[in-house]
Amino acid sequence: MFLAQRSLCFPSGRAKFLKTISSSKILGFSASAKMSLKFTNAKRIEGLDGNMWIEFTKLAADPSVVNLGQGFPDISPPTYVKEELSKISAIDSLNQYTRGFGHPSLVKALSYLYEKLYQKQIDSNKEILVTVGAYGSLFNTIQALIDEGDEVILIVPFYDCYEPMVRMAGATPVFIPLRSKPVDGKRWSSSDWTLDPQELESKFNSKTKAIILNTPHNPLGKVYNKEELQVIADLCIKYDTLCISDEVYEWLVYSGNKHLKIATFPGMWERTITIGSAGKTFSVTGWKLGWSIGPNHLIKHLQTVQQNTIYTCATPLQEALAQAFWIDIKRMDDPECYFNSLPKELEVKRDRMVHLLESVGLKPIVPDGGYFIIADVSLLDLDLSDMKNNEPYDYKFVKWMTKHKKLSAIPVSAFCNSETKSQFEKFVRFCFIKKDSTLDAAEEIIKAWSVQKS
Amino acid sequence: MFLAQRSLCFPSGRAKFLKTISSSKILGFSASAKMSLKFTNAKRIEGLDGNMWIEFTKLAADPSVVNLGQGFPDISPPTYVKEELSKISAIDSLNQYTRGFGHPSLVKALSYLYEKLYQKQIDSNKEILVTVGAYGSLFNTIQALIDEGDEVILIVPFYDCYEPMVRMAGATPVFIPLRSKPVDGKRWSSSDWTLDPQELESKFNSKTKAIILNTPHNPLGKVYNKEELQVIADLCIKYDTLCISDEVYEWLVYSGNKHLKIATFPGMWERTITIGSAGKTFSVTGWKLGWSIGPNHLIKHLQTVQQNTIYTCATPLQEALAQAFWIDIKRMDDPECYFNSLPKELEVKRDRMVHLLESVGLKPIVPDGGYFIIADVSLLDLDLSDMKNNEPYDYKFVKWMTKHKKLSAIPVSAFCNSETKSQFEKFVRFCFIKKDSTLDAAEEIIKAWSVQKS
Repeated sequence: MFLAQRSLCFPSGRAKFLKTISSSKILGFSASAKMSLKFTNAKRIEGLDGNMWIEFTKLAADPSVVNLGQGFPDISPPTYVKEELSKISAIDSLNQYTRGFGHPSLVKALSYLYEKLYQKQIDSNKEILVTVGAYGSLFNTIQALIDEGDEVILIVPFYDCYEPMVRMAGATPVFIPLRSKPVDGKRWSSSDWTLDPQELESKFNSKTKAIILNTPHNPLGKVYNKEELQVIADLCIKYDTLCISDEVYEWLVYSGNKHLKIATFPGMWERTITIGSAGKTFSVTGWKLGWSIGPNHLIKHLQTVQQNTIYTCATPLQEALAQAFWIDIKRMDDPECYFNSLPKELEVKRDRMVHLLESVGLKPIVPDGGYFIIADVSLLDLDLSDMKNNEPYDYKFVKWMTKHKKLSAIPVSAFCNSETKSQFEKFVRFCFIKKDSTLDAAEEIIKAWSVQKS
Repeated sequence: MFLAQRSLCFPSGRAKFLKTISSSKILGFSASAKMSLKFTNAKRIEGLDGNMWIEFTKLAADPSVVNLGQGFPDISPPTYVKEELSKISAIDSLNQYTRGFGHPSLVKALSYLYEKLYQKQIDSNKEILVTVGAYGSLFNTIQALIDEGDEVILIVPFYDCYEPMVRMAGATPVFIPLRSKPVDGKRWSSSDWTLDPQELESKFNSKTKAIILNTPHNPLGKVYNKEELQVIADLCIKYDTLCISDEVYEWLVYSGNKHLKIATFPGMWERTITIGSAGKTFSVTGWKLGWSIGPNHLIKHLQTVQQNTIYTCATPLQEALAQAFWIDIKRMDDPECYFNSLPKELEVKRDRMVHLLESVGLKPIVPDGGYFIIADVSLLDLDLSDMKNNEPYDYKFVKWMTKHKKLSAIPVSAFCNSETKSQFEKFVRFCFIKKDSTLDAAEEIIKAWSVQKS
């Protein structure tokens, strides 16, 4: 029956009007098709084909490698999150299309939650857009609001997709690095890395359309404080600029720190798109759900991009996420609430990583938020001169470590533009949202390495 | 604890360097921000904010309306498909990120399946890309390969997103309508609608980058035959043009018809991207998974777009889909195989709709494939002159029918460019992948209406 319904085509006759085309000509075109100049990529993606995740994720795929590279949890997501998805998968209607700009129950949960945080009303239909991960939110926002010829300020190091996304929109990224003040003998903290306000202002001009902010910051773990955000807000207002605020690690801040939303600063709501992530909030990076929140005069353009790119996100995942949110929204003051319990759990892991890295003579930068820790590995004095030379030191270091020590990480210069790579190539990033057995295995590798060296 | 970890910001001091900006100036900027000329949409989405699905889906959301509008099944998806998702949701690792270009087990299942259909080897990593629905595949393909200034041929009527997607890429859509030959007293079939080969050739020129083909066709239900596809293939080769072949209804062809893949025609593999859909294949439109298949020299550019737009698709859905595919791949010659059983089930529903529409004096076009049937409703002689006049007749008809008869459908002129709307505005589209009770309710409405009229 299968073969009766479908068959491959072995064409014979041609429509009469095409008689003028001789067979040999057709064959000629066919044979040369691969070489056709028409079949190159569109200009908008020229030079954007490199992607370090593909390379380093493949390296770490070897099951004998302890993977502290790509930022995904190997701890279990909360049981109720998984159970909600299991229950919902059985409901027929929740396996079909839902509202394009966000499943009704999910945007309702999100507006309820963020109204508390923003202390203002948020219209669930007009001021929220559900996207394919925070990654999709970033793309969507940039395509909606950034034009050819615009400039967009990126703070180095930056989550690596910012730069190609800005370039794909035909805009020019303008870079400013976070710089560390001297810490002498003290512990190095992510809060030691700051923007120089005058240098920052020098990046703004009449072409500046937006600045992309990321707090808590990946890979540094920096949590911008009130004064730092006020500097950025003032400049956004002075230069009439948008702020795209990537806050996917918003719940993951450690003792003594507070996550602040720049959209709550006076004059900022109307010019800010704030981006959140289900993957980071509930430790389910594979669900690929995120959201943009902002004023309707901006969100409506993001909605236009959505309806002309992917139209809608997966319904069963959106419904399960909505249910999970309600469970935790109802107990937000309770230590059991995942928004509170996950950072507590991670703070222990962070501290463990700090001690481990310090114990072998490395110099970690203690993160105030997020689930990454970066460390200066130049102190290991590893001789990598026999590896091919056109890569930054950290790329070579991570490849060497993955191959010879069976421990993977991510090179920090991957989060830099080509001009600033050299400033960060002595750093590698370790992900610590990992179960204890994974961290045990990493500890064993690092300690054995240290013994070998000494 | 919640409040201790997070707080809203009530800014006070400013960084010293900003002292030059007076408070009133800051307030002045802030107050005028909403009016900023900078905050308009990016040019690429200018004029693309309209979307008929949003309007008609909202109308049909009234639970008292029998919804034969948007194309989603209200029949149950196969039990094993839902069960696979339920099982997988419990597996921690399958709730985390997977390979960006397609989850390994899914691209393996897809390559195994399509190798049979294409009778050629398909590299699962280099010649397949998993996307956010077929919609995402279309977007991705167009962004990857279509440049500003290019022309793309669209066959009218066309699935409505083709036109804005082409425009968003800065290209110009060039339209050619399917035209019906006279059928006199005979039943009208989707195969009566054809392209005029000479008219089609007149649309090709040196700027033509691609033609978008859709077979089986939405909304007509036309299944292009071998000769028709050969005409298109010959022109693609003659004018060195890409073919984007939207084959989401590939399994849904009715007795006497065969679905043929234009990519299997000589000289076409290297210039064709073929698009498929999990939603249409397994009746789970809410899963939003699709795929593009083609030669690596094209797919590699689609992969570049993927890594700069959404990076990866949802893992649990991809794994569940892979498992579902293996179940049916193993029984492809069995009538129980969903690829065979679903079209049989739908053919009965199609025939029921044909008889129903004919019984009340309407003139349906009998579809050879897909799950839509369109009918000329002008025979009802409905006087809609009191409705606002700037909409095509079918828009008004569907709105009237939804409001007064509690039956929804989709106006066919929504699938036309503005110049050809008048050719199709007497037609509305009904979706028939609906359970019997839904079709019973539709039958009751239509028959009662007919009695009222007579």
